[in-house]
Amino acid sequence: MEERLEKQLAFALEIDKEKNIFRQTSLSGHGRKENDAEHAWHMAIMAYLLREYANEKVDIAKVMLMCLIHDIVEIDAGDTYAYDDKSLQTQKEREECAKERIFSLLPDDQKQELVALFDEFEEYQTPEAKFAHAMDNLQPIMLNNSNGGSDWMEHGVSAEKVYGRQRKTRLGSEKLFEVIDCIIQENIKRGSLK
Amino acid sequence: MEERLEKQLAFALEIDKEKNIFRQTSLSGHGRKENDAEHAWHMAIMAYLLREYANEKVDIAKVMLMCLIHDIVEIDAGDTYAYDDKSLQTQKEREECAKERIFSLLPDDQKQELVALFDEFEEYQTPEAKFAHAMDNLQPIMLNNSNGGSDWMEHGVSAEKVYGRQRKTRLGSEKLFEVIDCIIQENIKRGSLK
Repeated sequence: MEERLEKQLAFALEIDKEKNIFRQTSLSGHGRKENDAEHAWHMAIMAYLLREYANEKVDIAKVMLMCLIHDIVEIDAGDTYAYDDKSLQTQKEREECAKERIFSLLPDDQKQELVALFDEFEEYQTPEAKFAHAMDNLQPIMLNNSNGGSDWMEHGVSAEKVYGRQRKTRLGSEKLFEVIDCIIQENIKRGSLK
Repeated sequence: MEERLEKQLAFALEIDKEKNIFRQTSLSGHGRKENDAEHAWHMAIMAYLLREYANEKVDIAKVMLMCLIHDIVEIDAGDTYAYDDKSLQTQKEREECAKERIFSLLPDDQKQELVALFDEFEEYQTPEAKFAHAMDNLQPIMLNNSNGGSDWMEHGVSAEKVYGRQRKTRLGSEKLFEVIDCIIQENIKRGSLK
């Protein structure tokens, strides 16, 4: 087999491991914890269906691909819970090492392309990155709300912390931030957010 | 909240259930069975990275979306194993009912769009449908091969059956069919395919 195709297939097989990286979000119906691959799949479909609410015009194919690959680094770096301050301090370094190892399995042109896309997501500057982050924020909050905010209760998360993260959703979509704001307010009333 | 956005979010929440539909493919490293959402995520990334091997020029964003949504009907219809002849007989009917119920949660324009995309996949005629099917075939065979063909052994599958299905992979990609042909031949030698 040609070296190029061999490398592409090696990467394709490697990313299978993302299905073993579990998050702190529970599936709807008080299900088990969600893994990164499922989360990425969900985000990509939501991005497509909700693209009309992006603040700025987005290249939706780019947003979807960004959603699909944004957690691949967690194969090595593990999931960092959004409200775990200690892990957040080392997240960047762990993810940089993972990025180098995993994307290097690809042919060089595809490595450069996916690394650039991952970096663009992380830098939160382009319309696509902002909208992909809005999905990264909305998707787990939607599941958590469907379970009465049980993920927040489990970790004793405060509304202040959630707002701290979710205010950035506004950068991608004012409209979807309104949805999130309603959800947060409901969960404060319900007592599932401190 | 506007009715349109409410419907879009209801659909987004409903498809979370796809993460509970398990397939007959085991994850690499002799892992647990894979679910439909993970499988779709994996196919969409593979489609993007392997698009240069499509027989015909494809709209890759369309292929990716097709990959992401092609198993949503299984939320109601369940997974039909590719080599289970009895279930294959009722698959079409079960999936038609599911399609109507689930996509009807969306606003009408988006329902029409996703149903058309699902039907296009099923009809196997366009370059995009053929290439998406090639991914649907290659992805589980790649995982199964990484596990020494254990999924085939578990179900006592014959090489003839696998060729019957995989010959259609050629319609999407001659090159990737060559990869699959190598895998099948290796597994015959290894004794994991009858």
